[in-house]
Formats: sequence, structure tokens, C-alpha cells
Amino acid sequence: MLNFDFYNPTRILFGEGQIERLARLVPAGARVLVLYGGGSIRANGTYDAVMSALKDHTVFEFGGIEPNPSYETLTQAIALVKRENVDYLVAVGGGSVIDGTKFVAAGAKLDEDPWTILEQHAKNVRAALPFGAVLTLPATGSEMNSGSVITKKATQEKFAFMSRLVFPQFAILDPTRTYTLPARQVGNGIVDAFVHIMEQYMTVSGNTKVQDRFAEGLLQTLVEEGPRALAEPENYAVRANLMWTATLALNGLIGAGVSQDWATHMIGHELTALYGLDHAQTLAVVLPAMLRERREAKRAKLLQYAARVWDLREGDEDARIEAAIARTEDFFRSVGVATRLSDYGLGQDVVPAVVNALEAHGMTKLGETGEVTLAVSRKVLERSL
Amino acid sequence: MLNFDFYNPTRILFGEGQIERLARLVPAGARVLVLYGGGSIRANGTYDAVMSALKDHTVFEFGGIEPNPSYETLTQAIALVKRENVDYLVAVGGGSVIDGTKFVAAGAKLDEDPWTILEQHAKNVRAALPFGAVLTLPATGSEMNSGSVITKKATQEKFAFMSRLVFPQFAILDPTRTYTLPARQVGNGIVDAFVHIMEQYMTVSGNTKVQDRFAEGLLQTLVEEGPRALAEPENYAVRANLMWTATLALNGLIGAGVSQDWATHMIGHELTALYGLDHAQTLAVVLPAMLRERREAKRAKLLQYAARVWDLREGDEDARIEAAIARTEDFFRSVGVATRLSDYGLGQDVVPAVVNALEAHGMTKLGETGEVTLAVSRKVLERSL
Repeated sequence: MLNFDFYNPTRILFGEGQIERLARLVPAGARVLVLYGGGSIRANGTYDAVMSALKDHTVFEFGGIEPNPSYETLTQAIALVKRENVDYLVAVGGGSVIDGTKFVAAGAKLDEDPWTILEQHAKNVRAALPFGAVLTLPATGSEMNSGSVITKKATQEKFAFMSRLVFPQFAILDPTRTYTLPARQVGNGIVDAFVHIMEQYMTVSGNTKVQDRFAEGLLQTLVEEGPRALAEPENYAVRANLMWTATLALNGLIGAGVSQDWATHMIGHELTALYGLDHAQTLAVVLPAMLRERREAKRAKLLQYAARVWDLREGDEDARIEAAIARTEDFFRSVGVATRLSDYGLGQDVVPAVVNALEAHGMTKLGETGEVTLAVSRKVLERSL
Repeated sequence: MLNFDFYNPTRILFGEGQIERLARLVPAGARVLVLYGGGSIRANGTYDAVMSALKDHTVFEFGGIEPNPSYETLTQAIALVKRENVDYLVAVGGGSVIDGTKFVAAGAKLDEDPWTILEQHAKNVRAALPFGAVLTLPATGSEMNSGSVITKKATQEKFAFMSRLVFPQFAILDPTRTYTLPARQVGNGIVDAFVHIMEQYMTVSGNTKVQDRFAEGLLQTLVEEGPRALAEPENYAVRANLMWTATLALNGLIGAGVSQDWATHMIGHELTALYGLDHAQTLAVVLPAMLRERREAKRAKLLQYAARVWDLREGDEDARIEAAIARTEDFFRSVGVATRLSDYGLGQDVVPAVVNALEAHGMTKLGETGEVTLAVSRKVLERSL
């Protein structure tokens, strides 16, 4: 086990009806900005529930935060915060809205261009507005972590930052608020959580028994509950298990003390930036190809994954590994997410374009050992066509 | 899944060498009281490491906090805190020292008799001194939770309190600091952590897939690493897995959203108060008897436990359950903790004495459904002779 520093002060309020508690979770007298995405929270009642809970607060609102939240949009929110002297933020939505709110929280305290937060890996973040989150889409884990991924449309760049100053103070997780999600978003969320876990788990072995078993438990739960969430969208128990799993997939716990990979994400970010694929679509495409390409380096862990997650314990080792990867692909497709670039109308020309983008962004030694060079990334992309 | 409110702001600094970080974790200028137990931390170098890290602070010390930390001892520490205007506490030890430090932290801010904290279930705790912990014994989880168990020697009473004001600000977990522990303490710690997990896991089923699998992962890790920790006391990987497991066993995570039992602990507390058994000894005695007595109520979960923790998946259901309980007892004995009252020289007269104590303390409806009445507790005690 590697030495680690684990800290996660986000308070989780889980279950049906918890939105009402916003009334007391947000400080009395605060000037509150409610941030959200498209109109879905208006259609499904979540917007009304939030506004009702905040009826005794001074509330402003900022809608229109897009998937892959953009610098261009969020700087407008920062301007609103400064103009109206907002001192508390409430994100209502999925990972994009919460990531965007983190950027607003930090950016509102900066005098310089907030894009510098990405350029400087948050080293210039010395303060942030406090905020809470009302989660409507189990997927990214942003509701209980200190990370954020922001896209600059003008330059097609997509970068992450992390800062302990942007942990949500609280996150409300009400599984009933996910009942009306479109199937595409549910499937994407499941794949996103699955690959978050895999990036922390599928590494060279580090004698991290607890972290491994927690990761495997989360993966098994996704495998069991993912397809059921699509088939039975109003099954509370299924939605609850899924929601808590997605949060725990990326709250720092299973990654504490383990080497982490994240090569799949880095390649995936370029695919989204260049071609506009959903984040989860890029992960479903890249992960299986990555596992096949890196099979020898991760042999022991792939066998453990095959045994413990897919119950593949007998027969030839290579066959077990290939079967586990094939099951992973089948699982992604079973929740509606295609696993080949060609499924998204993309072809061979993607390979040099993404490799060039990786090079331009310094992503030349990815993975927990730095072995995913540009040459390896090229092979991964070729396997994913 | 039940609605839940999960919050745990304790920062964990895990790994060899982390004690040095005390120098900056404790605020500069603080008047620090270092609390500890017996002399073992002096003999093994932990005391020196702590004092060296705090050499630029104003440091007082209070040793002699006993196992099952007592009101009588701790009120002396509170007096020292008040007399010297101490404003930061550092607990160096296991669960007893950390529990005791929590009592000191809260008691130092009270004008009234601090025993009222126990009597009033911490309702009168409105402030507490900040503190951190250096853990030397993986066992109770006190280093990352807000609970504390205090004994009043004068009346042989042992009660718990919980307050969000007594989360440690940080906890340093350095596995090398556990190398020199006596085997009895290591074994006790393993049993303590195991039963903490069981109290949260072995309940009526609540469709809590993640919590179940996390609990099972922790139990499996204890089963694998417990005997190895005794056989290879300086195996870093084993000690690290054990240390992190014991912390996660009772930091609120696996208990969030699940009904919890704790009947074994309540009966165990009376055995310690009346006869001075180690806490873990009482748990090793009571748990197997409790599982046998409550077999029908917990049938589904016992079968899941048999399958997932002990790989007992085939054959007659009752035989599987009995085998899983027998394996549990074998495991306790394998780490040196006996599982019968008679092993500790106790006999039939214990039964009415403990039942009377339970009645006197209002412990008449224990367990997650309240079904462990005094009559059931009596049967459990009879099974544990």
C-alpha cells in the first residue's frame, strides 16, 4: 500500500425527501445562486422542490450549464456571482453542473482570468465560495470529491483541476430524483462510474486488499443494478444502490493508497474535445481496447478481475482475461453504450488526430507506470476502431 | 436502503513516517496536551517520535489512560487542560486513549460534571477542544469516528456517547508503529474490528448491496491478514491492510443506510464492567452465541455471510449457517481470543448478574428490531458458558 492522505468532508444526505433539508443546510441570510443545466429539472419537479426549500433565502439562478461544462458559459455565471454579491452556490444536476459550480466557486474569488485555474493546476486557488449539491444523475462522483473537468470551446481543450477548497459542503442524493432520467444518461452514468472504478483498480498489484475488494464490490453492484435501473426506472432500491455506488466510485476512498491509471480518461477527453462524444461513450470505447493492449502489464489484476467480478475462475488464463474484457464490453452495450469508434461514425483518421492532441497536451506517458506512450495510445485507438 | 446522513471530516495520514507531519498538523502556537496510556509508546519509540515532531510546540503530557478509560482518570486530564489553558489535544495510542481524549475534549468545555455527557447522550456537548490522533493499535476505529465509550469505576458503569464535535481533525496511521504490540492486543484488535463489522452487517436484509459488499470485503481481509499479523509481526503489507480495515470497520461508512444491531456490544459492555474482561474477549464470547440464538431472524444474511465470507455455498442451509458460525469461532481462537465464558473462569452465576445489569441500564430491547429482550439475552449468555 502506498502512503496516502485521505480527506473528504462532504456531508451526504441520502434518501427520498432530503431536498427539504436545503432550507437549513444553506446558511440563513445567504445570497444563493442555484446553478443547473437544461430544462429537465423544471419538467420533473426537482427545480420546484429546490426553490420551495429555499423560499426564505435570497435566490438567483443560472441555467444552461451544458454537458462538458464550458469556460465560456461558466464565466457568465462568475460575472453574475460578482455582480450580485452571491455568497453561496447550490448546484442542481449531474457531474457537469457540479463540476461547473466548482469552477464558479473558485473563479469567483480570482481577479485573473479563471482559465488560469486549469493552466496552473489550481495552484492559484486560495479561496472558493462555499456550495452544496443536489444530485440528479449518478455518474461522475463530483458530488463528493474535489475535482472538476472544464472545457474551453474556443480551443477544444478539456482539462481537470482539483482543490480541497471545492469539496461540496453537502450533497443531497435522493434516488427518486433519478426516475425520469433519459436512458442514455442513465447508461452513460453507469459506464462512467464503472470506468472510474477501473482506473483506480486495474493497476499493477499493490497489496491493497481493502481497496481492491471495495472496488470489486462497486463493480459487481453496477453489473447487477445497471441493467435493472434501465428496465425498472422507478425501483427505489435499485436506484439507491446505483446512486451510492457512483458516488463511492470517485470520492477518494478506493483510490487511497493505490497507484492509479487514468490513461483511458485522458484519451477519452481528447475524443470528446475533438468529436463531441459523450464522456461515457469515449470510456466505453477506450477501456476495452486499453485492457487488451495492456494485458501483459496487468495480467495478475485482470485475472483477479475476471475471478471476482465475473466469476471466471477456471480454464486457460488468457481465455479468462479475454472473456472478462468481452463481458465488460457486453455490459456497456447492455446499458446502451456502444464500444467501438465505428459505432459513432468515426474511422481511421481519428487515430492520428487524437495522438496529436495527446502530444500537444503533454499526455505522452500515461498510466500508473507511465508506460502508455503515444505509440501505445495509437495502438489502443487502432484497437477501438 | 434507509435514509442516511453521512459525514466524516477526519483526515487520514497513512503510512510509514507520517508522524513527522504532526509538526504542521498541530497549529503553530498551540498549547498541546499529549495523552497516552501505559509505557509501551515510550519503549517502542513512538513517544519520542511524537515529541520530536512537536518540539516547537508548548507540550504538556498526561499518561496512564487505562483500557476501558475511566471517568476517574480522565477528570484529572480535564483539570490539567483547564489549569494549563491547553487548546489542542493529541491522543497517542489505541481506542482507549482516543476515546478518553474525546471525553477530555468535550469535558474541558463544560462547567458541569463531565459524567453528564454520558447521562445526557452528549446533548450538553456544544463545543470541544480540537484534537488529532496517532494510532498505535488497529482495533476500535475511534481514530476516524465520533464515538467514545467511558467507564465509571465507582459504579461499574460503561456508556457510550457520540458527537460530531469529537471527530479527530486528523489521524496518523503508521503501520510500523504496530510492530511491537503484544499478541494479546493484536488479537483483541482483530476481534474488535470483526465484531464492529458484524454488528452493522448481520442484520435483517435491507437491500444495501454496497454496504454489504464493503463489510464482506473487510471481514475477508481480517480473516486473511489477522493470523498473518501474529505470525509475521513486521510484515508491512499485512499490518497496513489490517490497520486500514480496522479504521473502515467503524467510520460510519458501512453502517450508513443500514439497520444496525449492536446487541453483542451491549451485553459485552456489561461483562467488562462486571468482570473486567477485555472488550474483545466479551465480543468473542457473545457474538457466536448471539448468532446461534438469532439464527432464524437473520437466516438470509447468515447464508450470505456463509457464502461470501467463508465460501460455504453448497449443502443444507442449516449446516452452512452452523459451519459459518463455527468458522467464526475458530477464527477468533486463531488470533488468540477464547470464545467461552468458561475459558475466562466464569460460570452460571454470570447469567443473572448480566441480565440484571442490562435491565438496570434499560437494555431490554436490543438488536436492530428490538427483539433481543432480556429473555433472549439470557439465552445468549447461557449459550456462551
